[in-house]
Amino acid sequence: MYIEKLNWRYAAKKMNPSKPVPQEKVDRIVEAVRLAPTSSGLQPFELLVITNPELRAKICEAAYGQAQITDGSHLLVFAAWDNYTADRINGMFDLVNEERGFADEGWEAYRQRLLAGYVPRDEAVNFEHTARQAYIGLGVALMAAAFEEVDSTPMEGFDADKLDEILDLRARGLRSVSILPLGYRDKEGDWLVNLKKVRRPSEDFVTTLD
Amino acid sequence: MYIEKLNWRYAAKKMNPSKPVPQEKVDRIVEAVRLAPTSSGLQPFELLVITNPELRAKICEAAYGQAQITDGSHLLVFAAWDNYTADRINGMFDLVNEERGFADEGWEAYRQRLLAGYVPRDEAVNFEHTARQAYIGLGVALMAAAFEEVDSTPMEGFDADKLDEILDLRARGLRSVSILPLGYRDKEGDWLVNLKKVRRPSEDFVTTLD
Repeated sequence: MYIEKLNWRYAAKKMNPSKPVPQEKVDRIVEAVRLAPTSSGLQPFELLVITNPELRAKICEAAYGQAQITDGSHLLVFAAWDNYTADRINGMFDLVNEERGFADEGWEAYRQRLLAGYVPRDEAVNFEHTARQAYIGLGVALMAAAFEEVDSTPMEGFDADKLDEILDLRARGLRSVSILPLGYRDKEGDWLVNLKKVRRPSEDFVTTLD
Repeated sequence: MYIEKLNWRYAAKKMNPSKPVPQEKVDRIVEAVRLAPTSSGLQPFELLVITNPELRAKICEAAYGQAQITDGSHLLVFAAWDNYTADRINGMFDLVNEERGFADEGWEAYRQRLLAGYVPRDEAVNFEHTARQAYIGLGVALMAAAFEEVDSTPMEGFDADKLDEILDLRARGLRSVSILPLGYRDKEGDWLVNLKKVRRPSEDFVTTLD
């Protein structure tokens, strides 16, 4: 039951460096992110899966030394499109036509609407939009990891410019928005593991309008 | 298995107005959103759960007539904090201390860091940040709905200013960022239900750095 999985998960503060996550679990988590829905199905982000130790050491440095990045076995980097372009939008619409084996009039009109709306729009507005879609993927990844009984610690506390440089993301039209180390909690060394998970009570979080 | 659930789900284009989602399923989906992790645990958004038919009719109008809003039985509205304030940040840190029964020096230093970093920051930057956290919740809601075998159609295509006015969100320091009708697909009337789900192939979406 997903409620239990969400209660089990927490942002592990210390991961066990000698217990790697099996690759097939990581593959399934990554596949879940690939399947995540996004606005108009554009999937305006990419996912990097990093095990390379030197690379993770550099990223750890750009993330104020948060050790889960190197103590975990895999690091997911969510990198959003820096902008919408005609090529990117057409790429997705063409792929849909190819996969479904036909072009549809309404779908083609929708393509034109997106091209007209997104391409001339301010880059910052577009990036805000692509970043939000990446966060849907982040939410899906967190939950998928919980189902795999894999610990995951979402992080925004990193120097995005530096990370983009380390991974050469800007040249690919990408910008890092969040990272997610995957690993196993080290209960002995983790100050958070035994503390109560705190959320606002429902009455302060949910409004019901019947 | 969550991969199957994600493959089962799609953005239903037509929902069956005579098949309401049982309240206990909605309650569990909402609880999942409440449990979703957010940056520094601030939960900088709220969730509205709307069944009221007149209200949903008005919202449907502000959303270009997308009929799932009224054909579904429940509408979730994700409303992000319009800004970070000292009150909001202190509220969450105080709640954590209260729930855990103690104040921790490191935790209190972290509170001061957030107050110093977030409160003076530009409102637009803060809202971008809160909106992204709401999208983690959206990702969790989508997946929770799939586990409940409930259809859900994430929507950004609405006039946010109008929706904020209908729900009087601005007076509460909130801004709508996405909405999610919940219901059951009407297979007969849905042009999308039998079309192939299209996602970019892994080689175009995932980069592995070993």
